[in-house]
Amino acid sequence: MDNVLSLSTYNLHICSENNFPTAAGLASSASGFACLVYTLSQLYELPVSATELSKIARQGSGSACRSLFGGFVSWQMGSKRDGSDSQALQIASSDHWPELEALICVISDAKKGTSSTEGMQSTVKTSTLLQHRIDNVVPERMKLMTDSILRKDFSKFAELTMKDSNQFHACCLDTFPPIFYLNDTSRAIISVITEYNDKSGECKAAYTFDAGPNAVIYALKQNIPEIINLISKFFPPSRENLTFFSDPFKLFSDRKIGNLPLPANFNENIIPIFPNDSVKQIIHTCVGNGPRVKNDESLLNSDGFPKNLKK
Amino acid sequence: MDNVLSLSTYNLHICSENNFPTAAGLASSASGFACLVYTLSQLYELPVSATELSKIARQGSGSACRSLFGGFVSWQMGSKRDGSDSQALQIASSDHWPELEALICVISDAKKGTSSTEGMQSTVKTSTLLQHRIDNVVPERMKLMTDSILRKDFSKFAELTMKDSNQFHACCLDTFPPIFYLNDTSRAIISVITEYNDKSGECKAAYTFDAGPNAVIYALKQNIPEIINLISKFFPPSRENLTFFSDPFKLFSDRKIGNLPLPANFNENIIPIFPNDSVKQIIHTCVGNGPRVKNDESLLNSDGFPKNLKK
Repeated sequence: MDNVLSLSTYNLHICSENNFPTAAGLASSASGFACLVYTLSQLYELPVSATELSKIARQGSGSACRSLFGGFVSWQMGSKRDGSDSQALQIASSDHWPELEALICVISDAKKGTSSTEGMQSTVKTSTLLQHRIDNVVPERMKLMTDSILRKDFSKFAELTMKDSNQFHACCLDTFPPIFYLNDTSRAIISVITEYNDKSGECKAAYTFDAGPNAVIYALKQNIPEIINLISKFFPPSRENLTFFSDPFKLFSDRKIGNLPLPANFNENIIPIFPNDSVKQIIHTCVGNGPRVKNDESLLNSDGFPKNLKK
Repeated sequence: MDNVLSLSTYNLHICSENNFPTAAGLASSASGFACLVYTLSQLYELPVSATELSKIARQGSGSACRSLFGGFVSWQMGSKRDGSDSQALQIASSDHWPELEALICVISDAKKGTSSTEGMQSTVKTSTLLQHRIDNVVPERMKLMTDSILRKDFSKFAELTMKDSNQFHACCLDTFPPIFYLNDTSRAIISVITEYNDKSGECKAAYTFDAGPNAVIYALKQNIPEIINLISKFFPPSRENLTFFSDPFKLFSDRKIGNLPLPANFNENIIPIFPNDSVKQIIHTCVGNGPRVKNDESLLNSDGFPKNLKK
């Protein structure tokens, strides 16, 4: 304890960088708060588990508690009214289901978004459907979802993912005044994925939307090229958009996009072709690890000031 | 009964005309089926009440049962599983609340719509929120709504109207695959009305959406010019759009639209100005009467053929 106390007298320079779109409902604040809490716990050498840290992180941003782990993480609501026992637990590690990949479709939106924390507080206060969802729908779905991940059952995983995304946004719409995170591009992506699964004769892709219009599409590795092809067809990039497809972990090296055919009988008239750059970027990623200390890559220089300052 | 039997041997030529946009979620099929059932009952001189007729009309289109009455009508779900005792009752006649008027905003939409009957069947099958809405939310709201109409309490009427519209669309979104009737223009109208009520310091307008993107805005007579002004500001008509504002019952003769100011502190940045003709038309109307026999205005000529045939 002496050691902790003396460490805690340190003055701190905190520098944070994020390589993801911020305030776009892509959990950028969750990653930031998880990183802050984890880094401080490492610096002060706090003898606490990741689950204990998750309770602290979620005070900054609810979903930050999940970001303290790698792999597949369950956020348990707990039973206390003040949320003090709400915490995250790892269901499976990041190497459990390596075939599962994700495409994040970053969507243009004219509308100023509602922050997810404020939005949820208003939903809790005014939605007459939310409590029913919490009491009667979520617990069973959490069990089925955990089970589908452990069994690597993509079809069940996909169905639950889509249904739960829809129901979350239904409760946002049942808020008064209502909260809309999905826009016309989001709902068109839902229509395209619905038709794709329908005409493929099996569930090959699952959409989910957090507190913003951006879609996260989960799919198995072998179906990713077909899905990128599908999204680019209905939501084409402009010629100038050189960062349309981004593959930060270089997962795509051995696969081709090209001009793949749509599934037989795919009804192309369900939606119009959208204006260029309605989907600004597709980020291809996978199930990753949690926070790590990178001793060799400090964001501060030797004087303790940030190496890079964003303007 | 002899009379009814001999009448029922008539051969019929049925001609139907509708002066409202069809298949746009504006209850055009409800008006058609109500008209058909009412007209046949008059022709065959059937000794049944409007409430009895409403049970027949709702087999064609659920909401047709409401259209058999004028004024304010309640559609009671009944208690039988087969819906055979689901019927409509008039709450108040059409002259009960003459200050209440409506603006129907007809909205451009690229997407092919879902029919309201098919949509509701899918919602009943797949939504895990709908049953909760039916059992725990609607009965209380029906009582409060009836009461607010009888007391002519616009503020309460408006709040219930908006909340119930939101919750209906929430259940559509909780359907699997989800059903979307609202588009970006619809949600922008919701934002504009929310801001308008907020900055007016009182609830002056209520939006509601049926099975389509078109908004129906209820307001008291004295606030209608201000609301037309507000809608035209954010959703302007093109110069060529000569039918933007339509006032079939000539309610507007003594009122001016002009360039009215927005309420103080209205935040104009909540939404962008939409492209011309995103709202194609605003139809100004009021609480009307039910079906009537118009002996002097037959749609058939003296040979029994339609006077006008739509191509």
